[in-house]
Amino acid sequence: MKSDIDLYMNEAGINALLVQGSAQHNPSMTYFTGMVHITKGYLLKVRGSPPVLYCNDMEREEGAKTNYETHTFSTQELLVNAEGDPNLAEALILERILTEYDISGRVSVYGTGEAGQIFSALNMLADRLPGVDLIGEPVSSSVLIQARGTKDDEEITRIRSMGEITTSVVGDVIAFLTSHQVRDGILIDQNGVALTIGDVKKKINLWLTMRGAENPYGSIFAIGRDAGIPHSSGTNDDLIRLGESIVFDIYPCEAGGGYFHDFTRTWCLGYAPAEVQALYDDVLELYETISAAIRPDKYAREYQQMTCKFFEERGHPTMGSNPRAVEGYVHSLGHSLGLNIHEAPMMRDLATNNAKLIPGTVFTIEPGLYYPDRGMGVRIEDTVWMKPDGELETLVDFPKDLVIKIPGV
Amino acid sequence: MKSDIDLYMNEAGINALLVQGSAQHNPSMTYFTGMVHITKGYLLKVRGSPPVLYCNDMEREEGAKTNYETHTFSTQELLVNAEGDPNLAEALILERILTEYDISGRVSVYGTGEAGQIFSALNMLADRLPGVDLIGEPVSSSVLIQARGTKDDEEITRIRSMGEITTSVVGDVIAFLTSHQVRDGILIDQNGVALTIGDVKKKINLWLTMRGAENPYGSIFAIGRDAGIPHSSGTNDDLIRLGESIVFDIYPCEAGGGYFHDFTRTWCLGYAPAEVQALYDDVLELYETISAAIRPDKYAREYQQMTCKFFEERGHPTMGSNPRAVEGYVHSLGHSLGLNIHEAPMMRDLATNNAKLIPGTVFTIEPGLYYPDRGMGVRIEDTVWMKPDGELETLVDFPKDLVIKIPGV
Repeated sequence: MKSDIDLYMNEAGINALLVQGSAQHNPSMTYFTGMVHITKGYLLKVRGSPPVLYCNDMEREEGAKTNYETHTFSTQELLVNAEGDPNLAEALILERILTEYDISGRVSVYGTGEAGQIFSALNMLADRLPGVDLIGEPVSSSVLIQARGTKDDEEITRIRSMGEITTSVVGDVIAFLTSHQVRDGILIDQNGVALTIGDVKKKINLWLTMRGAENPYGSIFAIGRDAGIPHSSGTNDDLIRLGESIVFDIYPCEAGGGYFHDFTRTWCLGYAPAEVQALYDDVLELYETISAAIRPDKYAREYQQMTCKFFEERGHPTMGSNPRAVEGYVHSLGHSLGLNIHEAPMMRDLATNNAKLIPGTVFTIEPGLYYPDRGMGVRIEDTVWMKPDGELETLVDFPKDLVIKIPGV
Repeated sequence: MKSDIDLYMNEAGINALLVQGSAQHNPSMTYFTGMVHITKGYLLKVRGSPPVLYCNDMEREEGAKTNYETHTFSTQELLVNAEGDPNLAEALILERILTEYDISGRVSVYGTGEAGQIFSALNMLADRLPGVDLIGEPVSSSVLIQARGTKDDEEITRIRSMGEITTSVVGDVIAFLTSHQVRDGILIDQNGVALTIGDVKKKINLWLTMRGAENPYGSIFAIGRDAGIPHSSGTNDDLIRLGESIVFDIYPCEAGGGYFHDFTRTWCLGYAPAEVQALYDDVLELYETISAAIRPDKYAREYQQMTCKFFEERGHPTMGSNPRAVEGYVHSLGHSLGLNIHEAPMMRDLATNNAKLIPGTVFTIEPGLYYPDRGMGVRIEDTVWMKPDGELETLVDFPKDLVIKIPGV
């Protein structure tokens, strides 16, 4: 949690965190500032002291909204001092900040930005301040990722609230699909026009926006063969045919780059062919088995290993026996989430992955089975919270029915 | 233009561009790949050869949509080889790519990512491949920024199309505001409830989404004192009072992180007080003067200097005499745009800024005057294109009236 940052800094021997970039769609910055309208700011968190913020003159009032001590700078002056080189200008403002606070030793750098500028400016900064040791911590175990890995009550409320928005949109999608008629096994509207995946996706975006959410990475709404490819987002022109597996994975965030929720259901409209139903039953059984097995003292990788073993025993190929499998069970069992859709810990089957799902963690459980050449795929996903007592709570309940009844079918 | 990349690489003595990251909301990658669903990919553009793409196994079909030669890798295998260190894993895949294509000499790095990982992984890569000289080009003059700086016909069509969406939403906002009634000088709805800035912003997001646009940075809809602070986005609880200046700045992009449009109007509902009208007249006259003066052979900074001179003569303080001015004319006259909302060239008053607005450039002209302590601000902005013949074309025409008539007032 945020309140543990000094503790983690101490453990890692880091004297200061130096965060750069926008306060929107930039988790390391937003984590401190909230979603204020700062396009390019710098935040310094010295161990044992509250953060301070540097923003440009024009954004001084937005900076003040953060309640941190705020300093301003002139982008124009920096560029003049840097003789027009924006990378040097970046190094100069970072140098000013570290110098004003008399920082030396290990400084960990954070924030989203452009690779060229980051690489150039930070190396210039390192040359200019030999007493500072700039650190790029491993992104899976950095101080901020550790802090962000366990959520406080406000964060739980916000992720749950995004879940309520998410599932209410999923409910809208069911109502929308079932309001259609069927001709030759495909959904058509009142005018006889066939519904497409693209039509459904437009509605999803609209309904999310109406509820104050943002959908920066789109959604997966994939049918048939596409459903069998975990990261196919679906084909806009595809028609919606009864009896084919539809994987609907939706992962919006609070508008402005806030907290995410992640949710997947697999549906067959009208009826489910036996082979899809069998696949679905395996995934659901694994989902329930693994949910019951998750405990604070286990390594996250153990759940991935259990999942591979379970599916192998059912005759499915898995990443456990072939890391590059493209049929069967081919991805991680889940991932933590928050201000990023994917955060550490990941439940990867990796001998070196020593992450645990500890109380306070919010993560997905999302087993799936994929057979693109048989034109089908199944995934079930909820976002769950490991409560302070170690019990799991699904943040938002929603039915897991495979078959969505279509009136008249 | 994209077709000039080899030329710019040659001029800069760069052998290869190495682009990392998502294909969404990542201009350097999207510029090549389009908005496919690749969450973490790598693109190598060798001088004289078409780009090649590396994406992880799960995203192979999305990679294939780009029509580039596509290679795959296993994130899992990389992490195992890196003993669980994601920064080293990043260095290893970059090393593999550069080695497979036998790259040496100057390699320019691109793409949006996390500062810590970029800094750590690229420095490890530099150590591992001493024959490669990794370059972070100045972000204002890099090879890709030069190429992206002039738009081809397809890009013009897309930015114009975003402009049509943008102005149609602006029209919707006018219709929405004027459908309200007035009580005690503020807008109220049919039920007598006062309209707020937050209500208007929700509608803006909704109407943008309905038209297939995305609004990743929100909009500025700021009234009174907030209108006098160029980057205040407005206060959600503020009521909408007649006769106060409203700055409405809207800058959406194609859903998924595509091309932007940027547009601002300043309105007074019902009537304009004389001092707001006077401010408005100065800004509009400058807008028209400067639009007529823009020519391919001038430096962009000259327009900024002309603007400062014009406003100083009208008695307004400007950045020209005080770079940190917070009243009067306090920001750049405009900026180029495309896959980023702000791109080089910027029209900054900076002696070292040798950028020109050349044919093919798409940029904003956005003069403004700000007096927060007098509770007012004015900005007018259109997105314009310098056509191949050097003439300017406003991509989408929209009236510039200050006063929006409210029925019955």
